[in-house]
Amino acid sequence: MTWILDEHDVEAIALGAGVLGTGGGGNPYLGKLHLLQHLRRGARIAIVPPERIPDDALGCAVGGMGAPTVGIEKLPAGTEMLGAVRALEEHAGRRLEFLACAEIGGANSMQPLIVAAQTGLPVADADPMGRAFPELQMDTFMIGGVSPSPFALCDCHGNAAVFTRVEDPYWAERLGRAVTVAMGGSAALAMPLLSGRQLKELAIPGTYTLARRLGEAVLAARRRGEDPVEALRAAARGVLLFRGKVVDVERRTTAGFARGRLRVEAPGEVCTIEFQNEFLICRVGGEVRATTPDLICIVDAETAEPVSTEVLRYGLRVAVLGLPAPQQLRTPQALAVVGPRAFGYDVEYRPLPGHLLAALTA
Amino acid sequence: MTWILDEHDVEAIALGAGVLGTGGGGNPYLGKLHLLQHLRRGARIAIVPPERIPDDALGCAVGGMGAPTVGIEKLPAGTEMLGAVRALEEHAGRRLEFLACAEIGGANSMQPLIVAAQTGLPVADADPMGRAFPELQMDTFMIGGVSPSPFALCDCHGNAAVFTRVEDPYWAERLGRAVTVAMGGSAALAMPLLSGRQLKELAIPGTYTLARRLGEAVLAARRRGEDPVEALRAAARGVLLFRGKVVDVERRTTAGFARGRLRVEAPGEVCTIEFQNEFLICRVGGEVRATTPDLICIVDAETAEPVSTEVLRYGLRVAVLGLPAPQQLRTPQALAVVGPRAFGYDVEYRPLPGHLLAALTA
Repeated sequence: MTWILDEHDVEAIALGAGVLGTGGGGNPYLGKLHLLQHLRRGARIAIVPPERIPDDALGCAVGGMGAPTVGIEKLPAGTEMLGAVRALEEHAGRRLEFLACAEIGGANSMQPLIVAAQTGLPVADADPMGRAFPELQMDTFMIGGVSPSPFALCDCHGNAAVFTRVEDPYWAERLGRAVTVAMGGSAALAMPLLSGRQLKELAIPGTYTLARRLGEAVLAARRRGEDPVEALRAAARGVLLFRGKVVDVERRTTAGFARGRLRVEAPGEVCTIEFQNEFLICRVGGEVRATTPDLICIVDAETAEPVSTEVLRYGLRVAVLGLPAPQQLRTPQALAVVGPRAFGYDVEYRPLPGHLLAALTA
Repeated sequence: MTWILDEHDVEAIALGAGVLGTGGGGNPYLGKLHLLQHLRRGARIAIVPPERIPDDALGCAVGGMGAPTVGIEKLPAGTEMLGAVRALEEHAGRRLEFLACAEIGGANSMQPLIVAAQTGLPVADADPMGRAFPELQMDTFMIGGVSPSPFALCDCHGNAAVFTRVEDPYWAERLGRAVTVAMGGSAALAMPLLSGRQLKELAIPGTYTLARRLGEAVLAARRRGEDPVEALRAAARGVLLFRGKVVDVERRTTAGFARGRLRVEAPGEVCTIEFQNEFLICRVGGEVRATTPDLICIVDAETAEPVSTEVLRYGLRVAVLGLPAPQQLRTPQALAVVGPRAFGYDVEYRPLPGHLLAALTA
């Protein structure tokens, strides 16, 4: 169903996307304010099921590249995403016909919607992650063989680059990251250029709807005085991994990423979580309880407000949820790119039970 | 006079360009071998006076970006310069009509000649430095207001980026350097895109001829059993700043540059020279004897073979020559970009006497 975004949707998507960010993807708050401003000025933003997009239509995914910690103090100009899309259009020599979300998790959920408000283009209800991941090769478009080039980067000064050819997605990550760091640690990315057919074959469908459903579940539980954490867990078909107090956070912003670990304690129990922008592995009592690509989500224990890596601090009371990854991230090809070993952890991926996207058919 | 390059010219240019590299610009040796191979296979390379190039012709300068120390162990594929030119052409939407040298000093003297062999394009007898400088904003095209964008970078894997818009030449330097470092410390650069009119107005003319004359002076002195250092000094209208033995070299490759200082001793006298790829300031007995933009050139004391920063080592017997910079580098606008203060030295520029380009009319 094609769906026209309203302010309530934006609140719900921002909240749900914050959960799906698994600590990374940046906080959607600033993007939400920007988007609400567009809606209040009358922007009409259509979210379209992938199957409604013609096979031969040309579009691109958009999102921000950089460390979430940088986004706290380096505010976007608001024009950089559009600049990246225009640079890619200029290179392609034709106008694009649709936008896709590069990463539904976190702030990047807002970026295609903002560009849609600026251009009038429809946004596909889909993304290639179903969550957030720290590096460019870590999405189902790249895993499925879509060419990583051309891709465009643009910053708040209007500096723009089009990578016209890169050897593989890892080179895209390496070169794009270097430019992003030189641009001040954050940049707008338009990548990849893809056809409607590729979108339908490779994207994870319905993830804007999923983010909205998760956000609505939390908002409804808050209104009704029910436990929003339990409401979120149930809506996302997830498991409660831990509840406790954050007692230690090690975090450094290095080579364009926020990396570190945190420690959450409850009486007699300790949970440790390591992250590279996103939460990657969760251990309770030294035993691995969840790993990437399953989603490890930290939310406020009372409100279920998502807690991202850049706002983690001592004393927060949190719940740690494990949500089952979409099936597209659990294939052998995908696990080679986004499984625990791809991040240097010598553990097998043991899938959490359930199916995150089941929320869509509930 | 348009001039068709032969093997003897290449030997002389490589030697003279090595001197004009003032320690940087990379050693022309590998490029010379590549170029000689093209000539032996029948390539016809025309070096054309700028005034022969039509005002409305479109061309670009080409050269390598990176630290000379990297070039010792990371050999070029030989295709990256052509890749950068083709990426720029593709962006411009038209074929280029001439090539210019981005930097006559060092290895970059060879690069446009190699691309000329690959494309058949003529090479202007001119460059925007008359020497070598470490950063992109440091040339008379940028000082004269030519747009730094678009510019293209390409590496030995075929990875290519076109920076379609940059705010100023300093941003070009910052972003281009980041990509170059990520490409492994060296990359091919096509920049700027310029018209024949801009070439004529802003380039330093005759610098291929100058490099050849300096090289020929050294080669002739060697053949005749005369002092090649004195022959070089006379041909370049320079001064002998020092003769002695290298007794210490501090050199580190950092953030894409080779930086450091060296110490040369003679009985009772000490000369120190500091460098960022190129030699920037020369002191004898603690007193400043020459600074950028004048050329501080180190050559073997016996053979006048240029000694670049990456091959500096203990025990070398060297002569240090000071050559007067071309007039285009001595204007207030140019000194703000390439004078000693632009490199952080709190000293006035005191020009060496004479005129390097007088060698052309001798």
